[in-house]
Amino acid sequence: MKDLLGREDAVTVEKALSLLYEQKLQTPSTENTGIENAYGRVLSADVISPENLPGFNRSTMDGYAVNATDTFGASDSMPAYLTVTGEVHMGTKPDISLSRGGAAVIPTGGMLPVGADAVVMYEHTNRVGEDMLEVMKAVAPNENVILADEDVKEGDVILRAGQRLRPQDIGALAGLGILNIDVFKKPVVAIISTGDEVIPPDKPRAAGEVRDINSYNLAGLIIRGGGIPLKKGIISDDFDLLRATVRESMQEAQMVLISGGSSVGTRDYTSRVIDELGHPGILFHGVSIKPGKPLIGGMVNGIPLFGLPGHPAAVSVCFETFIEPLLKKISGEKRRKKLLPSGRTVRAFFGRNISSSTGREDHIRVALELRDNCLWARPILGKSGLIRTLVEADGTVIIPLNKNGITREKQLR
Amino acid sequence: MKDLLGREDAVTVEKALSLLYEQKLQTPSTENTGIENAYGRVLSADVISPENLPGFNRSTMDGYAVNATDTFGASDSMPAYLTVTGEVHMGTKPDISLSRGGAAVIPTGGMLPVGADAVVMYEHTNRVGEDMLEVMKAVAPNENVILADEDVKEGDVILRAGQRLRPQDIGALAGLGILNIDVFKKPVVAIISTGDEVIPPDKPRAAGEVRDINSYNLAGLIIRGGGIPLKKGIISDDFDLLRATVRESMQEAQMVLISGGSSVGTRDYTSRVIDELGHPGILFHGVSIKPGKPLIGGMVNGIPLFGLPGHPAAVSVCFETFIEPLLKKISGEKRRKKLLPSGRTVRAFFGRNISSSTGREDHIRVALELRDNCLWARPILGKSGLIRTLVEADGTVIIPLNKNGITREKQLR
Repeated sequence: MKDLLGREDAVTVEKALSLLYEQKLQTPSTENTGIENAYGRVLSADVISPENLPGFNRSTMDGYAVNATDTFGASDSMPAYLTVTGEVHMGTKPDISLSRGGAAVIPTGGMLPVGADAVVMYEHTNRVGEDMLEVMKAVAPNENVILADEDVKEGDVILRAGQRLRPQDIGALAGLGILNIDVFKKPVVAIISTGDEVIPPDKPRAAGEVRDINSYNLAGLIIRGGGIPLKKGIISDDFDLLRATVRESMQEAQMVLISGGSSVGTRDYTSRVIDELGHPGILFHGVSIKPGKPLIGGMVNGIPLFGLPGHPAAVSVCFETFIEPLLKKISGEKRRKKLLPSGRTVRAFFGRNISSSTGREDHIRVALELRDNCLWARPILGKSGLIRTLVEADGTVIIPLNKNGITREKQLR
Repeated sequence: MKDLLGREDAVTVEKALSLLYEQKLQTPSTENTGIENAYGRVLSADVISPENLPGFNRSTMDGYAVNATDTFGASDSMPAYLTVTGEVHMGTKPDISLSRGGAAVIPTGGMLPVGADAVVMYEHTNRVGEDMLEVMKAVAPNENVILADEDVKEGDVILRAGQRLRPQDIGALAGLGILNIDVFKKPVVAIISTGDEVIPPDKPRAAGEVRDINSYNLAGLIIRGGGIPLKKGIISDDFDLLRATVRESMQEAQMVLISGGSSVGTRDYTSRVIDELGHPGILFHGVSIKPGKPLIGGMVNGIPLFGLPGHPAAVSVCFETFIEPLLKKISGEKRRKKLLPSGRTVRAFFGRNISSSTGREDHIRVALELRDNCLWARPILGKSGLIRTLVEADGTVIIPLNKNGITREKQLR
């Protein structure tokens, strides 16, 4: 559908996302890596425990290993009396075994000797002389003990394919003696800057020119999202050159971002290139989002391609809303908890009424300020400067499609 | 102060943090780096703009550059009539200048020609024939224009020392033509594992032994916190060896973490070593936090040293609560917004009553679940296994010092 000025109708954010998500993507490749290099990587196969853990009956307290039966009925006024027959040392199999009525000193983490089935905490005992022990509290069998297979059983699935590995997950792998794992390769994302006015930041700038901000912003967003940026440089507004560069990028990358000149010509080139290169081509051409309305989304041979608007603030909004979720998907990540916000959110007061048109999703950049011990979100308004809005914003307030604006407290993304 | 069992009194979390924060730290070193490698790094000096931006009067709309005076009073019923005398091209200084009554086609981002002081949006014009333009809406001077120094002025502070650089900040630096910046060196954090029962994950495990989980968990937490982990290996419970290893680590690192065997002996060694190596030595020995109570905190010659409890869940809690904020500080980062949570928080329902002792801060590991379209936090309780609690937890619910527990909805860290 086109409007009166010959422009395509914009789709809603929800529709754009569903158009992207229903496409079949290329299957990500995998590689084997040592766990010390796997922080933040995405597992490509379930991890199965090769053994029981802790693998031995383990004390969870400093105290005495005992036979629980020997402590039944013990109390402050009527202690049980046991004989201390030895000591368990950390990291070794005890060289003693416990007979009825016996007790052995045991540290937290120590292995229970044969004949012991519980641990009395140090605090509930009283050593009388060399080897006599008063026990002031009864323990049940297995009390203060982790059984040999209680933490993990051999064959248990410990971590699942599609999980992004956190520090503690790598710790768990080390604990199981698993030193190498299969992970998805990080997706490469090509960045093509277009626009006759755009120059590289190391070139002297003449009147009318702007330096390439978007490649640098996008590269950082890609790294943060778990991908590898591949900068393809700045190309002028030339259809054949753009097509050749996009085609080359599709050989090298799993996603292609065309950071657009804002001119109508560039946008037309971008959408024609995406449509010419294969199926299904363009998925949408314009989204009901501000900033970011001119966004073009497409898919060719399972590779997502985006034509981004030229304004840096719009680039950030489009990346966070459309590209980052797709980047996670082509990284092989499965979002286990759909309701979790993808970014950090804080609650803040909004000091000002802001109106928004129904029918579009407004992303308002805000700076956070501390007033009277409360967080306030101050909108960064005014003309759309390139640099100020970037560095001053702490985050974004989203006004949904069907709202006319906000007046006060609002969740901040 | 010691209790009846000869153990040191625990301090509150707040007290422990203030004891750490009031110490003088070593000044972090700086280095110069290219902006393409500076994502996530911390600026060590303010960045001053070397020039005005955009550097020329720039259109923010597609339309016609005009002299605003020529449009005064224009409306749908009474358009102003102008003569189109040329076109502005992207990225070049216009080769035309505007006389009174003239207009020039201009794209978004184009440079205003001499004689023009405003831009009429395309939508508010009607081209009549070759060079006649009907203007249906008046514009004020500077309307739809960013003035040459309106975004950034030469000499403005753009980014401040102590800021951690986000993707958009690097974009802004590129936009200013700043390719190299001064940043603080990433702090190196030494990790020493102790305990006779601890073995490296690549060794076969005998009964009574556990593999080194904590070094791997800590290394990931350090990387995530912006530091460089330096693994010093596993050393047995030997005072002289521990002292030598800590001393060596203090030459190589800006912080030292001793991941403790849980045994009383190791803890005593750790605190004796910290006290022997210099001033002020031990700052606290035990904190009112669960898990993590046995934490030892110290400082020697401006280098923070921590003796961590052996249990992996306690290691994570101690890191997030005490070590991460200090790591940010020795990274040179200044927290501009003290009220911002350091981690991600979500709101979730809590399905179960949990009691907590007044006088200690409880950190309860929880898994998040989706029920009836709501997030629920399910506490991971039971015996303190090593692996399960690590991999199953999605986050932590904190019950403050002066609360007896929680019953329902609670913010999740």
